[in-house]
Amino acid sequence: METIHVKAFGTTAPEANLEQMNIHRRTVTPKDVEIDILYCGVCHSDLHTARNDWGGSKYPVVPGHEIVGKVTRVGSEVTKFKVGDLAAVGCIVDSCQTCSSCQQDLEQYCLNGFTGTYNGKDKHLGGHTFGGYSEKVVVDEHFVLSVPENLDLAAAAPLLCAGITTWSPLRHWNVKEGSKVAVVGLGGLGHMAIKLAKGLGASVSLFSRTPGKTEDAKALGADEVIISTDEAQMNAVKGKFDLIIDTVPYVHDVNPYVATLNINGTVVLVGYLGPLEPMLHTVPLILGRKSVAGSVIGGIAETQEMLDFCGKHNIVSDIEIIKMQDINHAYERMLKSDVKYRFVIDMQSLKN
Amino acid sequence: METIHVKAFGTTAPEANLEQMNIHRRTVTPKDVEIDILYCGVCHSDLHTARNDWGGSKYPVVPGHEIVGKVTRVGSEVTKFKVGDLAAVGCIVDSCQTCSSCQQDLEQYCLNGFTGTYNGKDKHLGGHTFGGYSEKVVVDEHFVLSVPENLDLAAAAPLLCAGITTWSPLRHWNVKEGSKVAVVGLGGLGHMAIKLAKGLGASVSLFSRTPGKTEDAKALGADEVIISTDEAQMNAVKGKFDLIIDTVPYVHDVNPYVATLNINGTVVLVGYLGPLEPMLHTVPLILGRKSVAGSVIGGIAETQEMLDFCGKHNIVSDIEIIKMQDINHAYERMLKSDVKYRFVIDMQSLKN
Ligand SMILES: [Zn+2]
Ligand SMILES: [Zn+2]
Ligand SMILES: [Zn+2]
Ligand SMILES: [Zn+2]
Repeated sequence: METIHVKAFGTTAPEANLEQMNIHRRTVTPKDVEIDILYCGVCHSDLHTARNDWGGSKYPVVPGHEIVGKVTRVGSEVTKFKVGDLAAVGCIVDSCQTCSSCQQDLEQYCLNGFTGTYNGKDKHLGGHTFGGYSEKVVVDEHFVLSVPENLDLAAAAPLLCAGITTWSPLRHWNVKEGSKVAVVGLGGLGHMAIKLAKGLGASVSLFSRTPGKTEDAKALGADEVIISTDEAQMNAVKGKFDLIIDTVPYVHDVNPYVATLNINGTVVLVGYLGPLEPMLHTVPLILGRKSVAGSVIGGIAETQEMLDFCGKHNIVSDIEIIKMQDINHAYERMLKSDVKYRFVIDMQSLKN
Repeated sequence: METIHVKAFGTTAPEANLEQMNIHRRTVTPKDVEIDILYCGVCHSDLHTARNDWGGSKYPVVPGHEIVGKVTRVGSEVTKFKVGDLAAVGCIVDSCQTCSSCQQDLEQYCLNGFTGTYNGKDKHLGGHTFGGYSEKVVVDEHFVLSVPENLDLAAAAPLLCAGITTWSPLRHWNVKEGSKVAVVGLGGLGHMAIKLAKGLGASVSLFSRTPGKTEDAKALGADEVIISTDEAQMNAVKGKFDLIIDTVPYVHDVNPYVATLNINGTVVLVGYLGPLEPMLHTVPLILGRKSVAGSVIGGIAETQEMLDFCGKHNIVSDIEIIKMQDINHAYERMLKSDVKYRFVIDMQSLKN
């Protein structure tokens, strides 16, 4: 298969810094779209994969799955895009498209495993996929999204992971006008959850461990900030919420949040991967028909729906733009939660 | 308030045997129905309340919340029942009827706390309520159910707790023709879950720790029995089920059952009250949008729906009829799971 060379930024080992390298992209097949990458958001998964924190990383790792850019070439059978269009790519660049999940537009739950935008198994070139910290990307049009023209392009990039990861549970659990939603954690995911839930007409509360975030949360659209370490404040919201989106990525006690669910309410975990410790108590689940659930990113159709919704409501991420060459420093700051609320790489910096 | 004396069977202390005693029932108020109790099912909650296993028991305890009988008197405003009708009473004899749960026919989740059929706070006479191990019961008609004439009356009694406890989650999680349901545990609840899920058109599997139950489960309607200690059998059903009803009343590992859920599937706990140990893992929840939930009994309208459904499909419990005087021995046998699948007291034995 013919390929093109493009500049990228990646890492060759868990302990190594990211540095410039060259990678191959396939030339467009009939169904492919080639995108010149203008901006790429920086997700926590990028860092964890680069450093092999979850195991199984394949090197070199070229991270990046919050990709926006312009179409520079299309295959002969492509119908959704033409050269010059704005386009975006999120966390998924391929899936079997035949299993029951794929047939329900739930590519994120593809029973044969979706192909991640980076560190996935590349069905075209062999080896593994490379993400958006690069000049160009070539993706089957089914997995390419359209970006509303009115959105700030850099600030739209994080919608492709942080946005859809919070949008999908909001939609699946039917959040609408008048719903009572709470968000746990105010980072990249949490700040998008507030904006999107608010956009859907819900009243939105933020659970925070520290009072310092109240003003910021309200500026993002939160109606209320509940200090989760304050027993009186926690008691005041007992039985209140229809849906709680818990974005906290480290182990924490979920039981206090369950107590704040209304009858039939759900805590949906989108951040923490591991055993629930302290142990989850069943009595509040049983006596209130409550659920603890999980959710991962979202399907392609749902991602497009979210982008269109954001276009209509003018919702984007709050970002800090960096150069590609600043990525190692940005990772250090992310580990200290020192970003409001997402780094986005101006990919022009890689091309210069 | 005027009262009548009736014979009952109850206990005066956690360690004491149940014995005959006299209790008061109110005379019918305008909305009340007086029922001559013909049969009363024996639920594990009866035993646990009698022995104060969950704390908070008030003595004397007169258990029993699977009550069927005949109407002997009705208040002046009663419209649903007349003298001579078959009638039934389950776990709930009162609720606020004004909260958001009650207004949605979810009396079991009454935000002000429903009044249990026994050991609840008696709003009429003060003190606490007495259950169905007695000659008669007087209940507001809103909380009295009609029993289809075609059902075996003794075998219908367990529908009032074991039946509705499994029916409610089957309905809430939308089990229908073609759904794939699994049941964990083959006791009073489990055997009803199999019959009701089958009646709704689902394919039904039983998880059992021992091979000895296969024939019994199939006779009850199960399509398949999976030995949960057999790794190959567990692997063969990975990702299979839409809903798992877990009736096991003691602490156990829920993670292996989560693995057998399909995308969007739910494990609903109806038996075990306590912390989930070993700890519940979030990764399978997140990567399959799965839920762990709880559910308790059911609402009054839903209980009537279930009774009508059972009438139409001729579904009742498999029972062993005992005399009131055998109750202490029956409790000992229940603790050894030595009953297929529910004891039902022939209340004539108390009247003799
Ligand atoms: Zn991401
Ligand atoms: Zn698939
Ligand atoms: Zn019961
Ligand atoms: Zn109520």
